[in-house]
Formats: sequence, C-alpha cells, structure tokens
Amino acid sequence: MSAILQIDTPGRAAIDVTARIADIVAASDAAGGLVHLFIQHTSASLTVQENADPDVMADLLDWLDRTAPETGPYRHRAEGPDDMPAHLKSAMTATSLTVPFENGRLLLGTWQGIYLLEHRRAKHRRRIVVTLVPEL
Amino acid sequence: MSAILQIDTPGRAAIDVTARIADIVAASDAAGGLVHLFIQHTSASLTVQENADPDVMADLLDWLDRTAPETGPYRHRAEGPDDMPAHLKSAMTATSLTVPFENGRLLLGTWQGIYLLEHRRAKHRRRIVVTLVPEL
Amino acid sequence: MSAILQIDTPGRAAIDVTARIADIVAASDAAGGLVHLFIQHTSASLTVQENADPDVMADLLDWLDRTAPETGPYRHRAEGPDDMPAHLKSAMTATSLTVPFENGRLLLGTWQGIYLLEHRRAKHRRRIVVTLVPEL
Repeated sequence: MSAILQIDTPGRAAIDVTARIADIVAASDAAGGLVHLFIQHTSASLTVQENADPDVMADLLDWLDRTAPETGPYRHRAEGPDDMPAHLKSAMTATSLTVPFENGRLLLGTWQGIYLLEHRRAKHRRRIVVTLVPEL
Repeated sequence: MSAILQIDTPGRAAIDVTARIADIVAASDAAGGLVHLFIQHTSASLTVQENADPDVMADLLDWLDRTAPETGPYRHRAEGPDDMPAHLKSAMTATSLTVPFENGRLLLGTWQGIYLLEHRRAKHRRRIVVTLVPEL
Repeated sequence: MSAILQIDTPGRAAIDVTARIADIVAASDAAGGLVHLFIQHTSASLTVQENADPDVMADLLDWLDRTAPETGPYRHRAEGPDDMPAHLKSAMTATSLTVPFENGRLLLGTWQGIYLLEHRRAKHRRRIVVTLVPEL
C-alpha cells in the first residue's frame, strides 16, 4: 500500500525528509526491499545529498538558481518568474527516487539524507507518494 | 512481464507518453504497485513534467540546448554535432523512471505527464521497456 | 537480498560497472524483474550512457566540470575545491538507478553501459547497494 506524505514548505528550501521516510520503513515487517518516493509536482523535486554541512544544500540551491536563472528567456511566464526555472530544476534533479532498506532501516550512506527541494518562492503543500517494494 | 513500447519521434521533441503507460497499467489487475520505464537509448530520455501549458516543454528543450550546446567543445563528433549534446541531455534527465499506481490508475499529480525527450535532430524509433512492480 | 558492490576508483573517472551488475543478475533464477542500484555517496554517482566510443564519457566528465566549476562561488570549501562540485554533479546525474532484466540478462540497449561516476580528484572506495526486484 502506498502512503501519502504531506510536506509544508516555506518556499525555496531544501527540506530533510529522511526521518519521515525512515519511520514508514521502520513500521514495515519486511526483511528487506526498497522504499520508493514519487513527488506529485513539477516545481518541487527530490534528491539524496550530504546531511553533514548545511552549506552543501545552500550551495546546491544557489547553483540551481545560476543554472536555471529567472532571466530566461522563457515563453512560460504566466505563473511568475520563478515557475519555469522551478520546472527546469525539477527536470535536472529527481521526481522519483528509490532507497534500499533492510530489517526496518534505510541503507543510506553515513552522510546521506533524503531532501525535498522546493523551487517556488511561495510556501506550498507538497505530496510525496511513498511505496514499499519487495526484493527477490 | 515487461512490455516494449515503440515510439516514433519526429526528431527533437517532447512526446507525451502518459496515455500509453496508463493503458498498460489499466490492463493490470494488481491493486497497486509501480510502473517502471527504461529507455534503451542514450540520446533520448524520460521526464515527468507539467502537461498543462505546452510552452513548458518548449522552454525545457530550449534550456537543454543552452545547457548542452552543440558548440561544445567535444571530442565525440563522428555522429554529428547534435549527438554529444544529446548524450549530455540524457545524462541530466532520466533513463529510468518509476510512477506508483493504484486500482489501475497512475498516481500522477494533477498537472503531471510522462514525456519521452528526443534529443537528436533526425526522427528515430525509440524503445521503452515497461515493467510492473508489486508493492509490499 | 541486497548485495554490496565495492568499487575502487582512481579519482575523477567514469567506470563501467555493467559486467559486475550483469553477473549478479545472471546468478538469479527469476524469469524477470529489475535490478536496482543505489550508491551510498553524494560525491560519486551513477548513469547509463553510451559504451561504444570512450570519447563520450570523457566529454561528459568535461561538461560536468564546466557546468559545476570548481570556481564556484561556494560556501562549502572545507573538504577541498572539488567537493562541492562533486555534490552538484551527483545531484544532476543519479544516486539510484534501475534496469530491467529477463532470463538472467539485462535489457540494456545495444550501446548502453552502466557507469559509476567518480567526481572527486582523489581515489575512493565506493559502495553500491544492488537489489533485485520482482515484477508483476
């Protein structure tokens, strides 16, 4: 069964959702498998990144701004200057993401966290579909 | 069992394949799971993006052109000036992609569509391996 | 059950791991399914790319250097000038990746290979969690 995770964002930010995902995995009695995340939006996205130094996520957001700048040029302008860059940042990171688990624990590396990236300026309520998948 | 989806592209384009994937999912009698797409090419790729305003996909293709320009510099030139940029665009979007489903319906967000991105100038026949995966 | 693949890298490089993954799949007696890779690092990543002309991977690494340059500007500098660019290159390629298989063989396209991308200058021991997933 899939669960829906609702995350309220403050606008442009990287939000650590690792603990929320770990809780869902911990509640499973499967010996192992994968946890799959799918974000139901195209102006917010997912990534696995370093969780040790918060400067890493600040630098990542700034670099996304430089790589997909609001200056464009873009056709799609009706939803504000930050909307088309948000779609591009979403396309170059991840909409779906999968992490293995074993005995109720995520098999993340020592310094890995799972992040929701909010690319819009305004606050949003975002939905992630979380599905547990068996292993062979 | 995996199914092969063949898509004929007109050259550089974003092609909405959502209905083709939805049909495969609708034919399944599983209560829920994931549909997995794998494109068997490295100069075309997959993405989930907004399907409301077609300008979004036009802007995405233009931005990919600016981010991976034909001017290079590149070593790999033998297959034409659009081939190496096509590989780069493929690397920064997705070769594999997974979407959850429930009761025969894709759990996409309201404005999400699944797209095949053709990065070459010439028309191509592209193959996507579609696999249904159970959930725990 | 998940397997851990350890890969020793020489520093900045694209390392073809297709044969290692194919061996794990060949040892399975499942008729079909998916093989899932998860790299437990955020300064190395995964990609599926052309394996015919080695210039493609050399061009990809150079383009990643131009897109996420060491000159920054970045806040995160403590781990060396190549660390923050490595995180960015990881975010724009893949941490998790899935490939379908059938009768013990990967369903890769004719010219596709699976690569580990080492983004740091120094050599590293990298870990990939490999999990086989059933199909419906």
